[in-house]
Amino acid sequence: MSKDSLLGGLLAAGFGEKSCLSRYQSVLYRKISPYKPSSYLLSRLRKYEDLHKHCGPHTKSYRKTIKLLKSGHSVGPTDCNYVVWISYSGLGNRILTLASAFLYALLTNRVLLVDRGKDMADLFCEPFPEKSWLLPLDFPLLPKFNSIDKESPHCFGKMLKNNIINSSTEQPPPFVYIYLSHDYGDHDKLFFCDQEQTLLGKVPWLIMKTNNYFAPSLFLMPSFEQELSKLFPEKETTFHHLGRYLFHPSNQVWGLITRFYKAYLAESNERIGIQIRTFDSGTAPFQYVIDQIMACTLKKKLLPEVNRQEAFVTPAENQKSIAVLMTSLNSGYSDAVRNMYWEQSAMSGEVVSVYQPSHEEVQQSEKQGHNRKAWAEMYLLSTTEALITSAWSTFGYVAQGLGGVTPWILYKPQNRTAPDPPCGRAMSMEPCFHAPPFYDCKAKTGVDTGALVPHVRHCEDMSWGLKLVGSHREL
Amino acid sequence: MSKDSLLGGLLAAGFGEKSCLSRYQSVLYRKISPYKPSSYLLSRLRKYEDLHKHCGPHTKSYRKTIKLLKSGHSVGPTDCNYVVWISYSGLGNRILTLASAFLYALLTNRVLLVDRGKDMADLFCEPFPEKSWLLPLDFPLLPKFNSIDKESPHCFGKMLKNNIINSSTEQPPPFVYIYLSHDYGDHDKLFFCDQEQTLLGKVPWLIMKTNNYFAPSLFLMPSFEQELSKLFPEKETTFHHLGRYLFHPSNQVWGLITRFYKAYLAESNERIGIQIRTFDSGTAPFQYVIDQIMACTLKKKLLPEVNRQEAFVTPAENQKSIAVLMTSLNSGYSDAVRNMYWEQSAMSGEVVSVYQPSHEEVQQSEKQGHNRKAWAEMYLLSTTEALITSAWSTFGYVAQGLGGVTPWILYKPQNRTAPDPPCGRAMSMEPCFHAPPFYDCKAKTGVDTGALVPHVRHCEDMSWGLKLVGSHREL
Ligand SMILES: Nc1nc2c(ncn2[C@@H]2O[C@H](COP(=O)(O)OP(=O)(O)O)[C@@H](O)[C@H]2O)c(=O)[nH]1
Ligand SMILES: Nc1nc2c(ncn2[C@@H]2O[C@H](COP(=O)(O)OP(=O)(O)O)[C@@H](O)[C@H]2O)c(=O)[nH]1
Repeated sequence: MSKDSLLGGLLAAGFGEKSCLSRYQSVLYRKISPYKPSSYLLSRLRKYEDLHKHCGPHTKSYRKTIKLLKSGHSVGPTDCNYVVWISYSGLGNRILTLASAFLYALLTNRVLLVDRGKDMADLFCEPFPEKSWLLPLDFPLLPKFNSIDKESPHCFGKMLKNNIINSSTEQPPPFVYIYLSHDYGDHDKLFFCDQEQTLLGKVPWLIMKTNNYFAPSLFLMPSFEQELSKLFPEKETTFHHLGRYLFHPSNQVWGLITRFYKAYLAESNERIGIQIRTFDSGTAPFQYVIDQIMACTLKKKLLPEVNRQEAFVTPAENQKSIAVLMTSLNSGYSDAVRNMYWEQSAMSGEVVSVYQPSHEEVQQSEKQGHNRKAWAEMYLLSTTEALITSAWSTFGYVAQGLGGVTPWILYKPQNRTAPDPPCGRAMSMEPCFHAPPFYDCKAKTGVDTGALVPHVRHCEDMSWGLKLVGSHREL
Repeated sequence: MSKDSLLGGLLAAGFGEKSCLSRYQSVLYRKISPYKPSSYLLSRLRKYEDLHKHCGPHTKSYRKTIKLLKSGHSVGPTDCNYVVWISYSGLGNRILTLASAFLYALLTNRVLLVDRGKDMADLFCEPFPEKSWLLPLDFPLLPKFNSIDKESPHCFGKMLKNNIINSSTEQPPPFVYIYLSHDYGDHDKLFFCDQEQTLLGKVPWLIMKTNNYFAPSLFLMPSFEQELSKLFPEKETTFHHLGRYLFHPSNQVWGLITRFYKAYLAESNERIGIQIRTFDSGTAPFQYVIDQIMACTLKKKLLPEVNRQEAFVTPAENQKSIAVLMTSLNSGYSDAVRNMYWEQSAMSGEVVSVYQPSHEEVQQSEKQGHNRKAWAEMYLLSTTEALITSAWSTFGYVAQGLGGVTPWILYKPQNRTAPDPPCGRAMSMEPCFHAPPFYDCKAKTGVDTGALVPHVRHCEDMSWGLKLVGSHREL
């Protein structure tokens, strides 16, 4: 086993190879990351793994802490504290929230446990040695997960609002719900204030429900600042490293990935990914999206021009082959691009082939085979050398982050017309936090959180979103 | 220019290369025919080319013979005689009828002229040196072509029926319509009798409308027997050689063929063609056709079995790659096959990729781009090493004939169920004549024309059809 197959120490050794082929074979498909994880991150991961081993499911400490939950009493300090991640929303969203929750666990010395939902166990390998990250099925609160919303009485925001707990509470309850979904309220957002974090530090069980990549706002909190800059000296690599550490496709999904790669992508000189996600109603494909794809790829020279005059161009001797991997719920977009390069020749004789693994037509987040394919496609996109993504889509964020590729973003069409410019280069490969708080915890007043520090800025694809940006990026 | 690029002398030299790239480049894509054309065929083709040069459009002889047409008088022997082929029906049908008409022209020393219809000039190169095979647009009868049917007064069958002409007619009219379409009548079928051929021999202009590959019935006529066995000592190669001689994709279509081949097929170790054509009403894809494709390809070991138990098979070191080229008006069939090899691994680790150039959904015989693609697809299918075709479809016949490949035929589904067996190997690579006459010209009585000689038999896919079978095939 080469050292590379452990991603330069990012991954822990000592896993059985057969049970999770992707952990060791990813280097055969995805280029080695140009970003080295900090040695501090590596040591913190190893430390986390030890903690997880100590506190994971069915350990003595776990059983002890579970009991507190059952007693319902308020408690003193505990040996192990947990953040339980609830499986919720589309797969792209889930991958981002899970990474956020893990980062939060690292920062707060908690152990991350994962609600398996319909398919988490089917999609991912175990990331931590020896002890599972899956929440045991007999976890007492599990039956409540589905119905948790911001009005739930055990919701941290709700409890603050109703003054059931506050910063002077000495012995808070054994668990609270952390609700950080797009529709969360002002009190839920206090999660991102140091004072409330101190309070939460005394709660052994945090049950977290979110569909947002909330890491950027953690970077704005003074209490985490120092630790975060040691973990991620290059802030733009936060999801990149955490994602590569956490998310290993299960053998089933790995079969989809490797078979597709070998059958369609492996032989090409160059691979380009185009991820199309539309949020407009009506029957796809939309002509304005086709126009936008063409305008972006040709204007930005991501794909070669075609010869519209002459139907047949005698091709150059040594032709470069370019494989275009397109993903979308609809097959019309890849059909259009494939047809363009079939009906006309590329100007300089490049051989352009276009592939789309699936076209599921409708989002079916709960169908098992469906999310296997969705995961395989995000991963396949992450193996490409250049990436064009759709505004607002977490599906694309995952691909760019795992791949370590700064994408070109197709801006969101307004009024069913292709925007001009059709696309632009992202500032960083980080995902966008779609629903960040705009609150100054100290001044207790509204503030533009995208204008406080150079490394947390508003997103290119969503003006009110926040994303991490590398220090090397020009302002 | 290698000798091979003229297909072993089948093609005449002396064409400009640029005007028809496919003529010289076909050897790069399609394997060299294992069937050598007879030297007699080659000499007859060269002789025909001379005749065409002498009698072709706008020659002195052509102008002279056209005048007869205008005068309308009955005539004596002429310098040049013609068979005018009317562009009619789907493209597969047209290619077969044009080959039949050319064979008839060879046998009767006529010159073949081609009605360009909507797109003949756009689809094909000129096959004969120097003089065009396209019927001049000022041909006096051209405006009537569309309306010709078996009831037209100038129809040969109609004239026989009404006793306007008969075998003792000394000076028949300057032109007759030869109507050999699927709905032709008993008198039209007398075209296949020697006595009536003698009469037709005196008519300088035969205007032929047909949607049938009628060559097999020519092989049953005593007057052509000797000549045909000299031309085609191996009878099964009739369409194969005539097709390769006549049908060269235009540069536009050649662009479609070569771009697709290079982008998707060139690198594979093995190429397999599957041509799906359904004739049932309702919304495709039909599950019973998907079942039939799977049953045929797996049962006959044309494609590898998949591992339905284990999702992930560690693949063999040196994997064979198999490209499956599928054509159909609908994309559902190739989706199903592509998915099968994506979702499961092939038993022995073969890498199977599946491609479909177009899916036009509805037959649009008159749309220009549409038939370019149809022609490109027939040609691409002809480059594959093994071919699975659909019963009844001339589209498949063209591919198998040009490719020199004996196909596996998917039998016609009855009552919307996959037939059992799902497919079978054809007896020969020849097309099937779908509407042959069952008439003994001498005895003037009905006869089973599929049981007279060993080399003309009933088709595998249509019990009443006739096809040529090689002498080497077991009875
Ligand atoms: N296979 C596949 N599924 C998709 C695609 N786009 C969206 N989906 C499905 O729709 C869901 C969208 O949710 P999510 O992944 O959170 O992405 P987002 O909605 O674009 O942010 C995915 O999880 C998939 O189930 C695609 O290109 N391919
Ligand atoms: N591009 C394309 N067109 C097809 C296909 N199948 C049928 N067609 C269209 O439908 C017509 C069918 O007529 P024809 O070629 O005579 O074949 P047949 O009806 O199957 O005997 C073709 O000429 C095409 O225009 C296909 O697989 N691909």
